[in-house]
Amino acid sequence: MSATLRIDGATRLYAIVGDPIVQVRSPLVFTERFAERGANAVLLPVRIAPERFDDVFAALLAIGNLDGVLVTVPFKPRALRFADRLGATAQCIGALNALRREDDGSWSGDMFDGVGFVRAAERKGQRIRDRRVALLGAGGAGSAIACALAEAGAATIDVIDPAPGRADALAGKLRAAFPDCRFAAATSVASDADLIVNASTVGMRPGDGMPAPLGPLPPGTLVGDVILSEEPTAMLRHAERCGCAWVSGRDMHAGQSDAIVAFFAPVLERAGGRPAAS
Amino acid sequence: MSATLRIDGATRLYAIVGDPIVQVRSPLVFTERFAERGANAVLLPVRIAPERFDDVFAALLAIGNLDGVLVTVPFKPRALRFADRLGATAQCIGALNALRREDDGSWSGDMFDGVGFVRAAERKGQRIRDRRVALLGAGGAGSAIACALAEAGAATIDVIDPAPGRADALAGKLRAAFPDCRFAAATSVASDADLIVNASTVGMRPGDGMPAPLGPLPPGTLVGDVILSEEPTAMLRHAERCGCAWVSGRDMHAGQSDAIVAFFAPVLERAGGRPAAS
Repeated sequence: MSATLRIDGATRLYAIVGDPIVQVRSPLVFTERFAERGANAVLLPVRIAPERFDDVFAALLAIGNLDGVLVTVPFKPRALRFADRLGATAQCIGALNALRREDDGSWSGDMFDGVGFVRAAERKGQRIRDRRVALLGAGGAGSAIACALAEAGAATIDVIDPAPGRADALAGKLRAAFPDCRFAAATSVASDADLIVNASTVGMRPGDGMPAPLGPLPPGTLVGDVILSEEPTAMLRHAERCGCAWVSGRDMHAGQSDAIVAFFAPVLERAGGRPAAS
Repeated sequence: MSATLRIDGATRLYAIVGDPIVQVRSPLVFTERFAERGANAVLLPVRIAPERFDDVFAALLAIGNLDGVLVTVPFKPRALRFADRLGATAQCIGALNALRREDDGSWSGDMFDGVGFVRAAERKGQRIRDRRVALLGAGGAGSAIACALAEAGAATIDVIDPAPGRADALAGKLRAAFPDCRFAAATSVASDADLIVNASTVGMRPGDGMPAPLGPLPPGTLVGDVILSEEPTAMLRHAERCGCAWVSGRDMHAGQSDAIVAFFAPVLERAGGRPAAS
């Protein structure tokens, strides 16, 4: 806790809403990013009990000096109906994780969980366009990453998930939303895949091993793993051994923060922040 | 704006609610006071449009990590019904300016606008007990100061207000709430008054002069003036010339902050703050 903490009557508010909330890192990360931009704005942890979500969230958006909201577990799907305008990913997935107040008072929302992967890959000099993707896991994270990869120009995306029907259902939704990308449900990683992403929970526990059997990979393959861990996961260690570029859960988080700051940038300008460079 | 601003997922929230809100100094003052106590807590400006007050304020109190609220213009009377428990002053006046969440989740509220005067006077080594008070102005500030003086043991309080019936009405309410103090409506400052407080708006504009004609005052007289101004008001300059002790609007503000921090102290301990010394 710093003694130079400064919040005054003109400070603009942003919130991250979830339950529980003590574990979130966004208040630290974004309040610092806002300050770096010279904006008089803070991002606050806001815990809402699930049974009060609808009325408390609506009221939060009615606070006159609140300009943006991040949404985390378990409210990403429930927050959708509060947006007056949705990005393609939020619309396809049926969930959002960020809302900003426009000049006319309306709210625009989108889902940035997947964009973090694309930004992190680009930071490492990797392109997404024309890649043949194998996506492991068709849950919330997988859905968001699939959308972001399709938007970034991936050629094909094979969705692999052990839960019956889940990969098929996601592929169907994606086809309707992103007609330029080819989607399929699959049961294993295709030999010509040149982008492999783990979006399952395998790797969370220390002894987990890999989310799918992977043989030697050509060095041009890009490997991603959503798992947030101190140590590289088994899958990333395998990528490293094969001489492949890789993107970790931490990299994706940083990439997502970049994307969300860019999303908030036009609104931050109202709080004295510099115009968006990104 | 400091780059070391630190808010994390465990930060406890306090809010000051009003409309407008940019002018308030409480976020700056209290966030600093909380940090001094070692509490991971911030006080935020929250603007609510009057037509949304009831539902947005109710929702604010439902935020799981929000522990206290200050209320300013125009919501002090309307906030009253949200308290499960009221202090004597709030009850008598029908308005409150602070609420804290108790361990059982219920909300206790009170009005601290008047206590600031008592605290500031005590800081200057002045006692209130047994004083004979002349109170100029029976509005919101005057009502709160009258309650605080009665609670602190003033012997008599003459209420003086040019608006017809206003002084009588306040004296009547006070009599019911504080039976140990003698209240009367009056038209001028009694010659034996030894505590004279201006709680009217006279003195706000530079050329205002004194709120009531005051002759030479015995040096034992204590003079107070609620007006918040850079320079001492005409009334305080008169007190100074007579060799009297005086309490300014700024002194009262500081005294009120002390009283509110003490009110929040048991709740701040949940945020890691040290036990209350005051």
